[in-house]
Amino acid sequence: MIEPKPTHTSLSELGEFGLIDHLTSGIVIKQKSTVKGVGDDAAIIDNGNSYSLVSTDLLVEGVHFDLTYTPLKHLGYKAAVVNFSDIYAMNGTPKQITVGIAVSNRFSVEALEELYSGIYLACEKYNVDLVGGDTTSSKSGLFISITVIGTAEKQDVVYRNTANEHDLICVSGDLGSAYAGLLLLEREKAVFLADPNMQPDLEGYDYPIERQLKPEARKDIIALFNEHHIKPTSMIDISDGLASEIIHICKGSGKGCAIYEEKIPIDISTMNLCDSVNIDPTTAALNGGEDYELLFTISQKDYDIIKGFLEVCVVGHITDESYGINLISRSGQSVPITAQGWDALRKD
Amino acid sequence: MIEPKPTHTSLSELGEFGLIDHLTSGIVIKQKSTVKGVGDDAAIIDNGNSYSLVSTDLLVEGVHFDLTYTPLKHLGYKAAVVNFSDIYAMNGTPKQITVGIAVSNRFSVEALEELYSGIYLACEKYNVDLVGGDTTSSKSGLFISITVIGTAEKQDVVYRNTANEHDLICVSGDLGSAYAGLLLLEREKAVFLADPNMQPDLEGYDYPIERQLKPEARKDIIALFNEHHIKPTSMIDISDGLASEIIHICKGSGKGCAIYEEKIPIDISTMNLCDSVNIDPTTAALNGGEDYELLFTISQKDYDIIKGFLEVCVVGHITDESYGINLISRSGQSVPITAQGWDALRKD
Repeated sequence: MIEPKPTHTSLSELGEFGLIDHLTSGIVIKQKSTVKGVGDDAAIIDNGNSYSLVSTDLLVEGVHFDLTYTPLKHLGYKAAVVNFSDIYAMNGTPKQITVGIAVSNRFSVEALEELYSGIYLACEKYNVDLVGGDTTSSKSGLFISITVIGTAEKQDVVYRNTANEHDLICVSGDLGSAYAGLLLLEREKAVFLADPNMQPDLEGYDYPIERQLKPEARKDIIALFNEHHIKPTSMIDISDGLASEIIHICKGSGKGCAIYEEKIPIDISTMNLCDSVNIDPTTAALNGGEDYELLFTISQKDYDIIKGFLEVCVVGHITDESYGINLISRSGQSVPITAQGWDALRKD
Repeated sequence: MIEPKPTHTSLSELGEFGLIDHLTSGIVIKQKSTVKGVGDDAAIIDNGNSYSLVSTDLLVEGVHFDLTYTPLKHLGYKAAVVNFSDIYAMNGTPKQITVGIAVSNRFSVEALEELYSGIYLACEKYNVDLVGGDTTSSKSGLFISITVIGTAEKQDVVYRNTANEHDLICVSGDLGSAYAGLLLLEREKAVFLADPNMQPDLEGYDYPIERQLKPEARKDIIALFNEHHIKPTSMIDISDGLASEIIHICKGSGKGCAIYEEKIPIDISTMNLCDSVNIDPTTAALNGGEDYELLFTISQKDYDIIKGFLEVCVVGHITDESYGINLISRSGQSVPITAQGWDALRKD
């Protein structure tokens, strides 16, 4: 008997990356100006002299943000910055954005002004122009779609699939804070909903809350690469957690890796907060996401330069593929890293 | 006494164009590569050799489309084509798109495949590459955000605010069909909802229905300009109706115009359909929208060439600003044209 073809596959069965792979696997590139399509932080378009880099991110109310504790100005700022981060992750410079916004009529003009003021603030700080967009209504909720356009010299672009064996794996800043901040905000929201007279208890956790509500993109690290004439061998920004991103680099490059748990940079107030919200800080760093730090690999010959970068930590090294993708725990055990990163298509 | 500042202005008070003006009026362009920001069919970025053109459109379920009568494949096709139309309206060529989609979990993988198959079909036909995007979930409904990137030689770009007095006003194809098709589909939906045993009566109206569900962008007209070495003096695509678009051209150019009702091209089956759904065909052409034809002005010296274009009609001429923006009715009366085009932020 022939099995009938299933005609209804739920989105959560494939997950976000599976779905994107599934929907884009058949693409045939026709334009000779298209250097790189789907599959890295940004697409690459050849302009003749240089490359244009293009990336789109969509933020959906109730999925990516909760307006209970997210000020609209912060939301606008974050929506812009996470796009800039995609361009930096290619070793490029963001130059222009377009902004598409759909809002239900529960939003006022003043609320949209707040949202845009955050977008403009980010544009001001990162020297990016808002050049176009679309504003329309939605039946419910707020949707923000931002497309960023950047530039890079052709020889400067860094991909995620070009790591080499023995390269050092580096991370900018610290990890896990944005997720820990989110857990705290969610906890205090639950407390408030249970008893609206309770005031939120955020004392001492300014840093992880700021990391969640107002992340920055690592423009400074790209400037350092430029200043010291270093080019990473591969790079990606950490939007879905260290685990998910190192898997992208290793699988894309056909390599394995060893990441040392004790080397993963975690801020002290985030450590304390993880304790308070009862989550392992390494788990927050590996699977939390939204840190928008850069994960990159460098050739060992560049180690002497990189070790002078205050905001960069070496957390491991690239191995042969057969070694697998492993975390070396504090006790010296090797544990395979699996992606449990945030998936926008998961079932809640 | 000092009046308290109002703190809640509803979106519908400003309308779509008013809101965009309000939110973008303070923009200061910082990048010297930004040639043109908000305010035309597409933004313009200088690449050195040529210009990149960038435009974003957002389509929202329940606002821009109704899945009761819109096949997902058609929707995908239309979502892509309306973006291409913005690039042609600058006298450019669309080259790449990014696609952001947010869907609720009532959609299956197969449904998204249908949507993407329409996008790919449009890309195939217009020779455009899908190079990136974002797929995520929504709490309810389907949102499609497409950004298109095109190119144009610097000297070829046509703006909407550069019409000159005595220029001829031209329209490609015919107008009002997409709106008439929408009214028919809405009527038959209402009939079906009242009695699900009723079959929709769409007989004889293939053309307006196709114009609504599967519009095309006027790549062919841009090719003709190129072939005959003609450059319009101004151009815009007709997404919101002839009235709204000619007002954009005239106000942007600081001019007036006379458009002759009898010259407005309307298809015969659309005429019949307008009769059947009880709407004046001229109203459908002026205020209906979604035709995605090109509205452009040419210098009188190019008339001899343009009159050989089968798919182009001269519908009027540009005047001095003091004359106003007028429709000359069949009876010879001059009536000021006002924008009653479709506004995505109107109150329903």
